[in-house]
Amino acid sequence: MKRENERIDDLQYKGLKIIQNKEGFCFGIDSILLSDFAKEIPENAKVIDLGTGSGIISILLTAKTKLSKIYGIEIQKEVAELARRNIKLNKLENKFEIINENIKNIEKILEKNSFDAIVTNPPYKKEETGIKNENKIKLISRHEIEANLEDFIKISAKMLKNNGALYMVHRPERLADIIELLRKNKLEPKIIQLIYPKIKKAPTMVLIKAIKNAKPFLKIKEPLIIYNEDNTYTDEILKIYNKK
Amino acid sequence: MKRENERIDDLQYKGLKIIQNKEGFCFGIDSILLSDFAKEIPENAKVIDLGTGSGIISILLTAKTKLSKIYGIEIQKEVAELARRNIKLNKLENKFEIINENIKNIEKILEKNSFDAIVTNPPYKKEETGIKNENKIKLISRHEIEANLEDFIKISAKMLKNNGALYMVHRPERLADIIELLRKNKLEPKIIQLIYPKIKKAPTMVLIKAIKNAKPFLKIKEPLIIYNEDNTYTDEILKIYNKK
Repeated sequence: MKRENERIDDLQYKGLKIIQNKEGFCFGIDSILLSDFAKEIPENAKVIDLGTGSGIISILLTAKTKLSKIYGIEIQKEVAELARRNIKLNKLENKFEIINENIKNIEKILEKNSFDAIVTNPPYKKEETGIKNENKIKLISRHEIEANLEDFIKISAKMLKNNGALYMVHRPERLADIIELLRKNKLEPKIIQLIYPKIKKAPTMVLIKAIKNAKPFLKIKEPLIIYNEDNTYTDEILKIYNKK
Repeated sequence: MKRENERIDDLQYKGLKIIQNKEGFCFGIDSILLSDFAKEIPENAKVIDLGTGSGIISILLTAKTKLSKIYGIEIQKEVAELARRNIKLNKLENKFEIINENIKNIEKILEKNSFDAIVTNPPYKKEETGIKNENKIKLISRHEIEANLEDFIKISAKMLKNNGALYMVHRPERLADIIELLRKNKLEPKIIQLIYPKIKKAPTMVLIKAIKNAKPFLKIKEPLIIYNEDNTYTDEILKIYNKK
């Protein structure tokens, strides 16, 4: 199933594996942390993964939850095709389906106001920012070229049912944008957790859970710290990686 | 200078002292942390302290910065009078002045669009929430009775000059409200720091710096942790308390 320029990684979780393109966007700890953050998704939930990439978040969620169906939306044809091979590799054809489409168009394909949860690891960088000497696949995965943060939040608000939950991982510098846009779209920020690489460092990621049409009351969780001072993983991270 | 039901505390910082009403709202670590967070206020700055209480934040700021003048706005007559005695006690008559007024009315007294910085430790609780078997002085200090979060942010936006800075301490559960209201009033959140009581606990306070009419880019700082596992203060807190 592996092609040239690809590699198969063992996810070390319930026998799951993933094919990745070595020159494309390879999954990182942000996907692992988001799937752990969203593992509370209830039994029989209908879920969307906006910008699924290789499918990593959805694959982990099928193992961590008892969801009924997850749709992975991926705009890039080659990446969508890779995600489909990952579905076959892990025998998840009954649970996980890829739709090769821009997230902005899915309201024409899937039923609005009907999803229990949405997970998303959107492109982090604004279209005009950052170094762009990347290949096209990485560029679209990382930059807001085809859809921006507002598009991700707007479509989430449309697709979620009342009280449905959006789970997102993003960069801390976008938190004000995220909160403003969530509120504007009637998605109430309910849980935030900051991910700090070390105890005395600024955070590099933020996890956000928002609930459609909920009342305001934000819970900011304890800090999630990745490395101990001696550069080994903290117990919290080892637990998430299923190694403790 | 001390009256019945009052006590004088040594601030252990450059000889400063403070009179507090034992039955009123006594200052806490939030005031200490806010004055430290705002110590970057530049030389000769004109500053307002919205809801100054006993004057603790302004008193510390006169020692930590070279500001030219700070106006402490306090709605409660008895509390304003206490703050005035604290000014005398610390010989700060040239630098720190109390205005006994609702913060909503200060645009009629002070010049709009003219202040370099505003510091505020507003009431944390929504008017209708929490236990209210408190005396009236504490109630008004702690609850949004006379002015709410939106009033504090609106008046800050009016009084600050272009690029002026608002420094606020508040509760993490109000962070979404704070960010939404700041943006609505053209105050851009630029720095956030979360205060965690211990490394594995949820934060209990948040420090926010916003700049009038600035471009978006939020920096979330390293976590500020108050206690070590053995309940002693962390080095960061000892440094702020000037003990290290």
